[in-house]
Amino acid sequence: MPLTDAMQLISTDDHLVEHTDVYRERVPARFHDAAPHIVDLEDTGAQAWSYQGRIYPEVALNAVAGKPPEEFGMEPMRFDDIRAGCYDPIERLRDMDLDGTWAQLNFPTFAKPAGTMFLRGQDRELALLCVQAVNDFVLDEWCAAAPDRFIPLVVLPLWDVAGCVDEIERTAAKGAKAIGFPEHPVPLKLPSWYTGHWDPVFAAAQAAGLPLCLHFGSSGRVPQPSPEAPPPVWISLMGTNSIETTADLLFSPVLHQFPDLRIVLSEGGVGWMPWLLERCDYTWERHRHYTDVNRDVRPSELFRQHFSGCFIEDLAGLRARDLIGVDNITWESDYPHSDSNWPNSRTRLRDAVEDIPDDEVHKISELNARRLFGLGMTRS
Amino acid sequence: MPLTDAMQLISTDDHLVEHTDVYRERVPARFHDAAPHIVDLEDTGAQAWSYQGRIYPEVALNAVAGKPPEEFGMEPMRFDDIRAGCYDPIERLRDMDLDGTWAQLNFPTFAKPAGTMFLRGQDRELALLCVQAVNDFVLDEWCAAAPDRFIPLVVLPLWDVAGCVDEIERTAAKGAKAIGFPEHPVPLKLPSWYTGHWDPVFAAAQAAGLPLCLHFGSSGRVPQPSPEAPPPVWISLMGTNSIETTADLLFSPVLHQFPDLRIVLSEGGVGWMPWLLERCDYTWERHRHYTDVNRDVRPSELFRQHFSGCFIEDLAGLRARDLIGVDNITWESDYPHSDSNWPNSRTRLRDAVEDIPDDEVHKISELNARRLFGLGMTRS
Repeated sequence: MPLTDAMQLISTDDHLVEHTDVYRERVPARFHDAAPHIVDLEDTGAQAWSYQGRIYPEVALNAVAGKPPEEFGMEPMRFDDIRAGCYDPIERLRDMDLDGTWAQLNFPTFAKPAGTMFLRGQDRELALLCVQAVNDFVLDEWCAAAPDRFIPLVVLPLWDVAGCVDEIERTAAKGAKAIGFPEHPVPLKLPSWYTGHWDPVFAAAQAAGLPLCLHFGSSGRVPQPSPEAPPPVWISLMGTNSIETTADLLFSPVLHQFPDLRIVLSEGGVGWMPWLLERCDYTWERHRHYTDVNRDVRPSELFRQHFSGCFIEDLAGLRARDLIGVDNITWESDYPHSDSNWPNSRTRLRDAVEDIPDDEVHKISELNARRLFGLGMTRS
Repeated sequence: MPLTDAMQLISTDDHLVEHTDVYRERVPARFHDAAPHIVDLEDTGAQAWSYQGRIYPEVALNAVAGKPPEEFGMEPMRFDDIRAGCYDPIERLRDMDLDGTWAQLNFPTFAKPAGTMFLRGQDRELALLCVQAVNDFVLDEWCAAAPDRFIPLVVLPLWDVAGCVDEIERTAAKGAKAIGFPEHPVPLKLPSWYTGHWDPVFAAAQAAGLPLCLHFGSSGRVPQPSPEAPPPVWISLMGTNSIETTADLLFSPVLHQFPDLRIVLSEGGVGWMPWLLERCDYTWERHRHYTDVNRDVRPSELFRQHFSGCFIEDLAGLRARDLIGVDNITWESDYPHSDSNWPNSRTRLRDAVEDIPDDEVHKISELNARRLFGLGMTRS
């Protein structure tokens, strides 16, 4: 029984859906119309978000927890269609209890996992207020409901590096433990990690001890090799975004410059890591001599100092955990998305780890996440 | 000593460089100026290919065999800069003997691995003659030098499906054993596998028993997440092209329609396969109900019926070979490129497989390739 009752399951990637008043109640009255709010679309009976005069029809992207797979194709049309655990932290705690999960790190939904929604629209003053609003909601309302069971993740005003630094410092002071950051800036038409543009953000994250959580898809890139390919193709391939990010960061100056910066590949899976790390080392051995890369530290060594992977179910990755680094793997539940095994997460994880020694299971299910996000070991 | 002297090492991915007369001596005299030929660039002392009035400066892409890694950054400027084994089959056999390799499958260089060079230029009549020329060179000159040690791979006139079928039938009758086909048609602005466009090609390849060898990079896609990223990033990431192709084909109708079609992922590596197959199965379990995919055959099962992976060195993949399928793995030397371990291929492979049972080593090093390409078991 390697996953024992004493191990408190900590999930490093889940999603909350901002309730209808999250933004409006936190911005000045003059932004009442432009701030994100829910509208009813008269012709269809569906609900949608309205922000800066535009309509965004996904009220609760892929929030299908509790539905049978046969119904996964139907996106929720209204808040009524989704479980209250999506937007109500007290209900969420009940759903976590059903699932055998002790704590969760939640990404916002309307804001998107790295806050990239607020790159849209012309009004940057409102956009910054929205970033602060969702962060304050996460800190003051969602996580405050159970501070030892919710890990506060904040997002940044990505259009303004100085503003990012301010928001890191502001939210770290209020208890933030993680930053939702784009898995890659370039598809968002932002400067790459190689340009130095983000160095103040990396410095601030490092100083505050906040890992950057790069959720797959947060760059907006969707791998779609054929225009006609059905959804299972891109769903299966989303982890290639995490693969690209990993190689790109491993050969960049970033991790050499910021030795305490931590990168979390949220929902990226881990089973590809042994292959990629071996491949990066192989490439580094041959091509470091004539290229502008660090010539002293092997990419796999750099990876183990800086990266954490997250998996929902990844038997190949678990079997190869020694090649990845047992300290570099965390588990996630992905509630309420279709990848989640809720309400059977604990049962499925228990089966997946039954041949793994207790101490390693404990690291993967709980201790690595506690160390990564500085959660301490207090338990209730 | 699992890699025994009795095992004849068969490499499933290498490269030949067309010598200077390959095309001109096989096309009518009126094409003398437009057919591919080597020119000297007066100002630099370098050589280049000329084709249909355009200059292509790479005479022998990445043909660095025998050079130390410190010199890898220098692309060969002239035929004098590269080993004769690149363009002379007798010299190649000597280099193979030095390397401990019995047989090789070679992709052409100027034509590119899937013949995509001949999609360029306006003159389709000449383009078809060039496709036939390089195929005849491979069949009549290169492989004829040692029919039991060279596996003939041909390329197709990709702009014309009926012409592809004709060329498959023409070359199969002359002894072709494999087809170099794009890893993905869409980046080449050709129709995807989902459109039915390629079905006559798949049918002809299946009827002739010729596997489609999809060399990574043959779509022209180069993974370059950041514009400023140094070469080791895209070199490390090229296998993600093979990952995308695999998922795209596994959820397409192609492999269900052509049950005997074989797909070879040349240079794609194998260590990512356990992760991708598990991920595709997981996705299929959840999303097959509402999407237009086959609902009866698991993607991993389809993979084992149709795909072969190739590796140069891939310790992670070898360790997880049971999750891939020991019958689905072949070895490659990649002579004369920078990824190759020539002249130490056999030594490095011997070290890599030292903990693997003899019968499995024999499959991976020789028998799988013999079965895949219909080579028979005659030995000299």
